[in-house]
Amino acid sequence: MAKIAALSGFPEWLPSERLVEQHVIDVFREVAELHGFSGIETRAVEPLEQLLRKGEIDKEVYVLRRLHAEEGDEDTGADRSRTLGLHFDLTVPLARYVLEHQNDLAFPFRRYQIQKVWRGERPQDGRFREFYQADLDVIGQDTLPGHVEAEVAIVMAEILSRLPLPQVSIHANTRRLSEGFFRAIGFEDHTPVLRALDKLPKIGADAVAALLHDEAGASEEQAQKALAFASIRTRDASFAQQVRDLGGSGEMVEEGIAELTAVIERVEAAVPGMIVADLSIARGLDYYTGTVFESFVAGHESLGSICSGGRYDRLASDNRHTYPGVGLSIGLSRLVSRLVSAGMAAPSRAVPTCVLVSVADEEHRGRSDAAARALRARGISCEVAPSAAKFGKQIRYADRRGIPFIWFPGEEGTGGEVKDIRSGDQAAADATTWQPPAEDLRPRVLAAQEDQTD
Amino acid sequence: MAKIAALSGFPEWLPSERLVEQHVIDVFREVAELHGFSGIETRAVEPLEQLLRKGEIDKEVYVLRRLHAEEGDEDTGADRSRTLGLHFDLTVPLARYVLEHQNDLAFPFRRYQIQKVWRGERPQDGRFREFYQADLDVIGQDTLPGHVEAEVAIVMAEILSRLPLPQVSIHANTRRLSEGFFRAIGFEDHTPVLRALDKLPKIGADAVAALLHDEAGASEEQAQKALAFASIRTRDASFAQQVRDLGGSGEMVEEGIAELTAVIERVEAAVPGMIVADLSIARGLDYYTGTVFESFVAGHESLGSICSGGRYDRLASDNRHTYPGVGLSIGLSRLVSRLVSAGMAAPSRAVPTCVLVSVADEEHRGRSDAAARALRARGISCEVAPSAAKFGKQIRYADRRGIPFIWFPGEEGTGGEVKDIRSGDQAAADATTWQPPAEDLRPRVLAAQEDQTD
Repeated sequence: MAKIAALSGFPEWLPSERLVEQHVIDVFREVAELHGFSGIETRAVEPLEQLLRKGEIDKEVYVLRRLHAEEGDEDTGADRSRTLGLHFDLTVPLARYVLEHQNDLAFPFRRYQIQKVWRGERPQDGRFREFYQADLDVIGQDTLPGHVEAEVAIVMAEILSRLPLPQVSIHANTRRLSEGFFRAIGFEDHTPVLRALDKLPKIGADAVAALLHDEAGASEEQAQKALAFASIRTRDASFAQQVRDLGGSGEMVEEGIAELTAVIERVEAAVPGMIVADLSIARGLDYYTGTVFESFVAGHESLGSICSGGRYDRLASDNRHTYPGVGLSIGLSRLVSRLVSAGMAAPSRAVPTCVLVSVADEEHRGRSDAAARALRARGISCEVAPSAAKFGKQIRYADRRGIPFIWFPGEEGTGGEVKDIRSGDQAAADATTWQPPAEDLRPRVLAAQEDQTD
Repeated sequence: MAKIAALSGFPEWLPSERLVEQHVIDVFREVAELHGFSGIETRAVEPLEQLLRKGEIDKEVYVLRRLHAEEGDEDTGADRSRTLGLHFDLTVPLARYVLEHQNDLAFPFRRYQIQKVWRGERPQDGRFREFYQADLDVIGQDTLPGHVEAEVAIVMAEILSRLPLPQVSIHANTRRLSEGFFRAIGFEDHTPVLRALDKLPKIGADAVAALLHDEAGASEEQAQKALAFASIRTRDASFAQQVRDLGGSGEMVEEGIAELTAVIERVEAAVPGMIVADLSIARGLDYYTGTVFESFVAGHESLGSICSGGRYDRLASDNRHTYPGVGLSIGLSRLVSRLVSAGMAAPSRAVPTCVLVSVADEEHRGRSDAAARALRARGISCEVAPSAAKFGKQIRYADRRGIPFIWFPGEEGTGGEVKDIRSGDQAAADATTWQPPAEDLRPRVLAAQEDQTD
């Protein structure tokens, strides 16, 4: 076979690395289900027309064509309304799924979805062309109570707190607070203000002040107040007084304060130490209609936000209903890639196997099969040795794979001996009762020391 | 949003149906890992060149193109060696993965893989264009012992036996036995004989006899012997004497008998009642080099084989190594589709939620949050009611979703009352100690009565 090479932008894991990815997926699923979210999957393709509704990323879509499509077939690409493309996120498919199945779903609809998405971005930017995304959304029919914003953040905080990561912070802001404050200090249009503040981490305060002057018509005092507002970060409700002290007043500001306070206090009560009111968050405030969230890993700020989302008033609508929602999304492959490449997490072993059952000679392979069966019946993962080589060679086979135990079947029944390959300890045991230490039963994904940084 | 419609050939499940699919995937994963198989995923795309090596299905490949690909980009489709297509099975990607990562894998390499594949087939044939495939393979480097054939069949038998299906039979035959027998009774070339016998279920014995005469030059006696051979089906090693009685003799026949006997006896010992020696199996005997397997569900023979595979001597090779393997594959979406559409399996409820925690008034939502937290800490899935509606309405909310319990928090601490919505029983309980019955903890996927047929 010719020319075997990795494809840039299409990451692929070795078995031990896949254990890290699978662990992240399992944690996401377990926590989401504990909170009553249903798992769904949508097809990988959508009509190109649907995909292009979000015009700004149309460049990134992969279009499909059957290799031998003929004139008149739906997928020759001639008729855009019948052309299919691979989904580039899980939000466009969710909107379509909700409309298509609205009569079969119970609202509010709580769903999680972990699937691969595809974007034809230049892989040299360190971006992937194929990657997992993991989404949590609660979708209402026509209405959705405000407290759902905190609720979805709580679920995500619990997921992030269980991953093998250094400290993660979930930063929250709310549209009403920013918009209300910028109006209160005299800006007519908050959009250019948000756009300027969004550049703060990249260009710094002086350059943002200049932008606020040039693009938003800010006076020196207005620019300084906007920058002071954007520097407010608190882990409790004390941001409110700081906003008022800067001159934030009026109905909209007070509504925003009430909203954000409720989110901060409720998330803090549920998962302490993760939520931060961060009034510098500007990105997405033009799209989201309530609270917005971004999440950062301490020491890995270069990753950018690993989990973002918020409240939107119109996921989808038809002539009968409008579907508002609250959603958060993790760029799972990017996170796993960092976990693996920075050595932040590793499995305790590379294979699921806990016990290698040795084979004395091929004639008695049945004895080894029977011992393995007895162990598996109690949930202990076993392999039977592939050949009746010398025991030393069978031990090396296990050792190379990181299999912690080797079993030597006796001549009759389920009795035998079991050796811990790491310590060399060997003892008599019965396959119907022997139990490995709990920490050896399955590969566990462990966090490395937390002092690694970018 | 315009034109929301299902796409033919791209199945999509409602949340309760997805529970059935997820259950099948979970069982596959659990059993595969119990037998020491590592889970991997490969990227969804391969270079078109690689995909077209199996020439016979090149019509079915979906080719990718970036919507705004430019002249000179790798994916304009102009240069086939740089064009990407979606994988149509998991075998081509496995071959590439093994070659690409051979220095990082331990052989024999035991892997399972559950991923979607895509084929541009006409959906009107009842075929899917996007579907899950679930594969198990053991890959050797240069050599692979014969007993692995039984071993992979045992893992698959255990998976199939745990699915909510009526009786499944795994039918086995081996190439040496068929080829040896046809030579023993005087055929020079076994290929046209296999091709004719493969049509037996569709066209019947008389038509096959005519084909054997016309295409394989069979005498009347040879045709009758070939048909008699193909009618042999036994659940033990007694097929051997039947083959010998029909005139099967010689080294190749005896080798085939020994091989198939070992498979039948070893699988029967491990998972009783599933394996059948079935000498009518002809399909794939030209591709596979040892044992071949097909599997059928009693009463659902119209599904065809739900799980097939066998031994192949050359999955991949380069100038250093050849990689032989044994593999079995389930067409998972097709099976799930039948489970769902025939009502063969259904979840005990549609949502993961076990308990709806009611909310007396919005001011005290924190109490409900705290009760939910205490329950979740012990693995009990909870939702907190979305609104502080009247309790009757909150009970109906739970009932409509199939949530079995509703929790009424007390005014202090974690005490409260819990009501079983099905029986109406209500009792005092504490959220830090109350436990639902084990069968209510999670949705379970249950087999319906087993008398449903095609």
